[in-house]
Amino acid sequence: MSERIFNFSAGPAVLPESVLEEASQGVREFAGSGMSLLELSHRGKYYEAVHTEAENRLLSIMGLSPETHAALFLQGGASGQFAMLPMNFLTKDAVADYVVSGDWGAKALKEAKIFGDAREAASSKADRYAYIPKTFTQTPGAKYVHITTNNTIEGTEYFALPSTDAPLVTDASSDFLALERDWSKFAFLYAGAQKNVGPAGLVVVVASREFLAQARTDIPTIFAYKTHVDSHSLYNTPPAFSIYVLGLVLKWIEEQGGLPGIERRNRQKAAVIYSALDELSSFYEPAVTVKEDRSLMNVTWRLRNAELEADFLAEAKANKLDGLKGHRSVGGFRASIYNAFPTAGCQALADLLRDFAQRKG
Amino acid sequence: MSERIFNFSAGPAVLPESVLEEASQGVREFAGSGMSLLELSHRGKYYEAVHTEAENRLLSIMGLSPETHAALFLQGGASGQFAMLPMNFLTKDAVADYVVSGDWGAKALKEAKIFGDAREAASSKADRYAYIPKTFTQTPGAKYVHITTNNTIEGTEYFALPSTDAPLVTDASSDFLALERDWSKFAFLYAGAQKNVGPAGLVVVVASREFLAQARTDIPTIFAYKTHVDSHSLYNTPPAFSIYVLGLVLKWIEEQGGLPGIERRNRQKAAVIYSALDELSSFYEPAVTVKEDRSLMNVTWRLRNAELEADFLAEAKANKLDGLKGHRSVGGFRASIYNAFPTAGCQALADLLRDFAQRKG
Repeated sequence: MSERIFNFSAGPAVLPESVLEEASQGVREFAGSGMSLLELSHRGKYYEAVHTEAENRLLSIMGLSPETHAALFLQGGASGQFAMLPMNFLTKDAVADYVVSGDWGAKALKEAKIFGDAREAASSKADRYAYIPKTFTQTPGAKYVHITTNNTIEGTEYFALPSTDAPLVTDASSDFLALERDWSKFAFLYAGAQKNVGPAGLVVVVASREFLAQARTDIPTIFAYKTHVDSHSLYNTPPAFSIYVLGLVLKWIEEQGGLPGIERRNRQKAAVIYSALDELSSFYEPAVTVKEDRSLMNVTWRLRNAELEADFLAEAKANKLDGLKGHRSVGGFRASIYNAFPTAGCQALADLLRDFAQRKG
Repeated sequence: MSERIFNFSAGPAVLPESVLEEASQGVREFAGSGMSLLELSHRGKYYEAVHTEAENRLLSIMGLSPETHAALFLQGGASGQFAMLPMNFLTKDAVADYVVSGDWGAKALKEAKIFGDAREAASSKADRYAYIPKTFTQTPGAKYVHITTNNTIEGTEYFALPSTDAPLVTDASSDFLALERDWSKFAFLYAGAQKNVGPAGLVVVVASREFLAQARTDIPTIFAYKTHVDSHSLYNTPPAFSIYVLGLVLKWIEEQGGLPGIERRNRQKAAVIYSALDELSSFYEPAVTVKEDRSLMNVTWRLRNAELEADFLAEAKANKLDGLKGHRSVGGFRASIYNAFPTAGCQALADLLRDFAQRKG
């Protein structure tokens, strides 16, 4: 096996080594079943235990009760939820407000408009999404208000949640279970698993049962949330392996001290990189102008001298720091440092930032 | 590791041991990348090679050219395609004909009716789907005719494909790549991977580019086939691990002599079980009355004395024959013997069928 590199990929992203080790074994043979995890019937006792345990552990980590909230394991990613959410809730005469704090939020709004009256309630686009809009225009009686708690491409994150009378919905794909939050403030959230909590192929929905009860049922069975609530996400064959790995990651999160422990480590990790960037602000330019909005998950910056970008990337690669290129829509650099990304990798990046600036500045 | 059992599960189902071994290693570390397969960015060179190779190999095994056909890797299972297909093709004033040869076909029709004028063109429901309808009422100018090539629950399979002027569409979930077919006869097919070609969490679509060009584009981005054709199924994060394992299974299929080799083995395997059932027809009752329609994939039968069912299942389990219980909607027994199911398991089942009948008959 070759030496592990520091993988700053924005997702799919790094997973805990202990999880990979156990998942590798599960692919070979699962828990004395005489079968691989991949071969287990989703209606059989082995898989059902994996599935139910992941549901329960997820809600427990979030401090939510299965009586008031449901955890769903769906397919199609956050992009699928961009459509499924308004299909279920944006009924005739209803309005949904979208706060657009990044490119993904803009996409969510675009899809919602196909179904009904979805409105841009605020946007920081004019400033290249360099901050989180703190106020927004709320439509009285809005069916929901949609935000994006972490903006993967731009590197901003909500720490204080907006107050609103309407049910609050978020795309939490890139900061799900990465910090302590009062999750009960969300009527509905969805998150692609492949950043903080598992591999690709799984999108997690956590929502209040009260909100879910308002979803439409006169739509295709597979797209109705009710289908998946009623069946515990076992209406059709679930993405079993991804759910299994999610379960392993959830156990790992508990071992890290739950969300308080995870947040403490994530704050330390981000500080290591932001400190280096701030120290060297004549050489590096952080993409996020409002410090309080800086993401703990995706650190974004540019070189003031753009001609040095290729050099920086090459040196990073030579130092086994991979995946630092910024999203193609914005350029520059991005260090994605999700839950499982190790502190040592943040330190290695900070060292390179300092060393490179000293030599080239 | 405990001894491997004979896993007759209807899906997710048994996979080749060599594939499991390689996938297990890929979860630990992929091809000298210093990362797990689960951690690879879907925009990076390692994953892109896996993805493209799977696309190409799939079409090659089917004898189709990438110029005339596209292979898509989607999420949401066949149940998702029940909705996505009519959403894309069943435009206003269009009609689709559905031949209902089993419970899954009935579900496909039900979902299509939500979108437009989908008609039952034939059905064998009155006879508990015990045969494949050989004729059907074709609507002139139908947008497509939908069949189900293998009926997982009931145990029937199409060997001769129906002739029709309309584009032929099939749900091939349970016999995909299990036998030689002239795949070019299908304008569009879809198949959940978890039976013959991989783990859960992936549905494969193979369709002619000419047919795909007629799909709607004024629907949500994620549901438009055009989105996935144009992006080579990389519009959003794909179910990377399932696609990777699909690729390994495709290589394994090639090693078995491609579809001719696979079909030969599948016919031998099925014959071993059907012979035992036919020999002991006073004791066992095959669920499929028309021999020529008997599935190579799912062998279904009942005990003429239903009181012995629990005994049979218990003895099977004691002999490490697992997953033989029939679908909850029909009862009885079902042996699912997909591509990777070993001949020795079919022999072990035949031995038990004979032995049990001798002792209890």
